[in-house]
Amino acid sequence: MPGTQQSTTPTPAAAYTPTDRTVPTRAAHKASYDKELVHSILDEGYVCHLGFVRDGAPVVLPTLYGRVGETLYVHGSTGSRPLRMADQADPGLPVCLTVTHVDALILARSGFHHSINYRSVVVHGTAYQVTDPEEKRLALDALVDHVVPGRSQDSRPANNKEFAATAVLRLDLTEVSAKTRTGGVNDEPEDLTLPHWAGVLPLRKGYEAPIPDGDLAEGVEVPAYIRAM
Amino acid sequence: MPGTQQSTTPTPAAAYTPTDRTVPTRAAHKASYDKELVHSILDEGYVCHLGFVRDGAPVVLPTLYGRVGETLYVHGSTGSRPLRMADQADPGLPVCLTVTHVDALILARSGFHHSINYRSVVVHGTAYQVTDPEEKRLALDALVDHVVPGRSQDSRPANNKEFAATAVLRLDLTEVSAKTRTGGVNDEPEDLTLPHWAGVLPLRKGYEAPIPDGDLAEGVEVPAYIRAM
Repeated sequence: MPGTQQSTTPTPAAAYTPTDRTVPTRAAHKASYDKELVHSILDEGYVCHLGFVRDGAPVVLPTLYGRVGETLYVHGSTGSRPLRMADQADPGLPVCLTVTHVDALILARSGFHHSINYRSVVVHGTAYQVTDPEEKRLALDALVDHVVPGRSQDSRPANNKEFAATAVLRLDLTEVSAKTRTGGVNDEPEDLTLPHWAGVLPLRKGYEAPIPDGDLAEGVEVPAYIRAM
Repeated sequence: MPGTQQSTTPTPAAAYTPTDRTVPTRAAHKASYDKELVHSILDEGYVCHLGFVRDGAPVVLPTLYGRVGETLYVHGSTGSRPLRMADQADPGLPVCLTVTHVDALILARSGFHHSINYRSVVVHGTAYQVTDPEEKRLALDALVDHVVPGRSQDSRPANNKEFAATAVLRLDLTEVSAKTRTGGVNDEPEDLTLPHWAGVLPLRKGYEAPIPDGDLAEGVEVPAYIRAM
């Protein structure tokens, strides 16, 4: 209402600020900096590809991740390479973390217009070892809950030995972009009469029926949060 | 038979030679250099994560790939960043190309033993622009056939303009490793009586029914090689 005192709480920015690294050289219309879109892509996945530089050469490793607000966490053994490197690096380890979902194959009449529908997020930044024990516990829960929501409350938390053997890296979501391709076939008009089938082949998603471990304690049933997946 | 003349054709090596970069610092028992395993993992996928170094920082981008024998090909617009960089780089662009399949979630009674079943391949090497037109045509066919076997023969090949607008990189399979996790839950013996469900949640694989393009030429049916997927 006019004249009404507005809240002074700043509205969180709805988009990441594009940078030289997050503006693609091509197909810029497929790029987005929308935080909601970025979060939805990140939250649907749990395996990322983490890139870092070792002896001047790139290394790309698949690893699990979790998100808490505007922070991503990855974890690993304290002995694993990127986690040791981040520990020794000052001020942190430059990384690129990428998450990709493939949604469909696009079969065009021309080889050139073959494509895939996908949604990807690329995060550039510096990864730091999490040293605060409380943040580390939250991160480990987030990593489990990112794969199976609710699971951290229905499993034994890390004991001291496990906690000490696990290293966690944090990477803030500041330099971030999403890229998506949706829709159908984009053939050239003059190709439409070619005798080749064209269309979309959607990927099957989800999970098969859960396979219980052979040594389950008596009376333990598949929990609702797993059936819901 | 003893005394029989043996063929002098050398048997191809069945394994890649491990290097400092392909021997993991941890879980080395999960690593393999077996060519058949590597090929099978590569051939089941079609999206890789390609890492390279730009201005000293890592970049990881999802992209399609194809395999011809011991060579991988990736392609893109001649204007895209890694392809321009490989063109300008002398002698080529150092890359790391990683392919990952997630097969199942492993839900343990302890947070620590949660895991996933996966199969991944990591290729280190130098990517070169393919300049020979014949190799480039074969690579483009391989890229299409890698996603949908047989498709390159049932679509219009690139015309001159499309051919010129597409750049192809080659990466030889020399410094290569696979890493896999299979099987079920590995909980600590003392955790087996905990009242938490544990087991394996296999990922659903494959494709949904194909969705034909609205403008198909009359009488064009879904081909057998697509129904077979």
